[in-house]
Amino acid sequence: MAAHGAALPPLGLGEVRDAERRLRGRIHRTPLLTCAGLDRMAGRKLFFKCELLQKTGSFKIRGALNAVRSLVEERQRTGRELPRAVVTHSSGNHGQALACAAQAEGIPAYIVVPRTAPQCKQDAIRAYGATLVPCEPSDKSRAETACSVVQETGGVLVHPNQDPAVIAGQGTIALEVLEQAPQVNAVVVPVGGGGMVAGIAVAIKALRPDVKVFAAEPSNVDDCYQSKVRGELTPNLHPRDTIADAVKTSIGPNTWPIIRDLVDDVLTVSEEEIKRATWLVWERMKLLIEPTAGVGLAAVLSEQFQAVPRDVQNVCIVLCGGNVDLRSLTWLTELSGKAE
Amino acid sequence: MAAHGAALPPLGLGEVRDAERRLRGRIHRTPLLTCAGLDRMAGRKLFFKCELLQKTGSFKIRGALNAVRSLVEERQRTGRELPRAVVTHSSGNHGQALACAAQAEGIPAYIVVPRTAPQCKQDAIRAYGATLVPCEPSDKSRAETACSVVQETGGVLVHPNQDPAVIAGQGTIALEVLEQAPQVNAVVVPVGGGGMVAGIAVAIKALRPDVKVFAAEPSNVDDCYQSKVRGELTPNLHPRDTIADAVKTSIGPNTWPIIRDLVDDVLTVSEEEIKRATWLVWERMKLLIEPTAGVGLAAVLSEQFQAVPRDVQNVCIVLCGGNVDLRSLTWLTELSGKAE
Repeated sequence: MAAHGAALPPLGLGEVRDAERRLRGRIHRTPLLTCAGLDRMAGRKLFFKCELLQKTGSFKIRGALNAVRSLVEERQRTGRELPRAVVTHSSGNHGQALACAAQAEGIPAYIVVPRTAPQCKQDAIRAYGATLVPCEPSDKSRAETACSVVQETGGVLVHPNQDPAVIAGQGTIALEVLEQAPQVNAVVVPVGGGGMVAGIAVAIKALRPDVKVFAAEPSNVDDCYQSKVRGELTPNLHPRDTIADAVKTSIGPNTWPIIRDLVDDVLTVSEEEIKRATWLVWERMKLLIEPTAGVGLAAVLSEQFQAVPRDVQNVCIVLCGGNVDLRSLTWLTELSGKAE
Repeated sequence: MAAHGAALPPLGLGEVRDAERRLRGRIHRTPLLTCAGLDRMAGRKLFFKCELLQKTGSFKIRGALNAVRSLVEERQRTGRELPRAVVTHSSGNHGQALACAAQAEGIPAYIVVPRTAPQCKQDAIRAYGATLVPCEPSDKSRAETACSVVQETGGVLVHPNQDPAVIAGQGTIALEVLEQAPQVNAVVVPVGGGGMVAGIAVAIKALRPDVKVFAAEPSNVDDCYQSKVRGELTPNLHPRDTIADAVKTSIGPNTWPIIRDLVDDVLTVSEEEIKRATWLVWERMKLLIEPTAGVGLAAVLSEQFQAVPRDVQNVCIVLCGGNVDLRSLTWLTELSGKAE
């Protein structure tokens, strides 16, 4: 894959500011909501950055649109023609986001999707006018298929979380949070490939180094935690299953150095904690988050978070997405008795 | 019940402004969200006033808190002691709201609830420190039990929708909408007892008489529609069942004159239309509305709304609440196949 193995391009506050300019007026400024009941449970003041209310139902449009707009701007500046296509492999939120961003710019998008991906996700990608390219449900088949499509179409691969423009785009979340809640002492961000937490960490540590940045991760796929403990990039070679399916992927070569240097700590949570936190956000906040977005609250409600000093009083949790399959809610109704 | 049969006290913009002052800093200013996909379906620009994100999960806290604060202010002004208690009969959002408002003011609350009310609603009321008083599931038993409790406690009845302070409190929604979206041409409001649509109509028609106010109602309980057609208050004596359970009640003597004079039209929708609209808000907007809050969007997506002139381009829909019982989602999953 194109981005992997490449030297890390300089990524700093300037790139995040550029992304902010590119995205202005094209995406939602999502609300920052509060919930007194959850404050009481956490023993701190919580601020929820509602990226589930973002266009395409997740924060991913920030990175995808910044990548596409960057391509367009660069080609215009150098007098070349626009990219013939953009390509990615993702059955999830990045697939939808890239399809939406490409449609907005009038560029064809090809999204490589495992044959086993839920119909609703395939439908959502198709609704943005993208071409679905089926592959086998393996990392190898995904990467190979994406490479073939890039070659056949003359397109550009936009990696879901290692593309620097994607990372910079996700960082715009932090600029909004600092404006919406300048009193914030910490930001808690679910981590999968690490694009979001890396982008946020770059912006936060440049502007407000006193603000803590925590990554939150399911224990079942704790590659970010393991990498921090060992001090070297340690991908999950055999990730276990997790209900937080959008963060099953591992951090990569471009996000790891940023996470290593700028993320204060990685918090891990159990599947039960994720389910309970998701349920709480549904019931108390009326926000239809996907389970991955419950990972941050789960971390803040966990016992280990009690060790975070009490002067970290104002905590922002990023609710990263809401693309839950409404047809598969059985685990929630099963949980309902236990969550009280 | 105290409010019924009383002469309508003057209720105008001044009372709504007073309510705004009383509520300031005590409740959320809820966001006004948009959704491009639903705009395309409606053929108009839609603005969703997210009262499901209000404290207690519905707009009802506005009216309840205004009523309680009005009582407190009046007693303080006249040097009398605070009310010994506030009382109401409501298993739903007003019960929770009054419990919350009374707790905030340190006044005991007694909520008369049918024995058959869902456990989760009873739990929510109890969580605000109120005393539950069980009654039989009939209007007669509710009213009689509430009267007894008022006598026994020396408390004050706060009617869910006919109390003028409640109506004025709900009207503060309109003040926020006009600030958040001054370009609005119409507001669509679900109607049950009519407190919300009456309060909104009073404020809108005083400030912006050019803005249309539509009430939206399930066909199964169309007393507001029938009242407007006949020109006289026509309560549902035998209301049919509706999934929009929070608007099953009829408009009353205090809301009817306001609705008669200030509401432009009443739109009725089928149960299927309500379910589909609720599903769409869940799926497209990631907002966990209760089915009653789907009534407004159902009306805007209905065929009859096509007759509304095209220059009514910017339409605000009030998403009134999100207190859905997560344990009873079967109808949604059953619907999922049909809603595409």
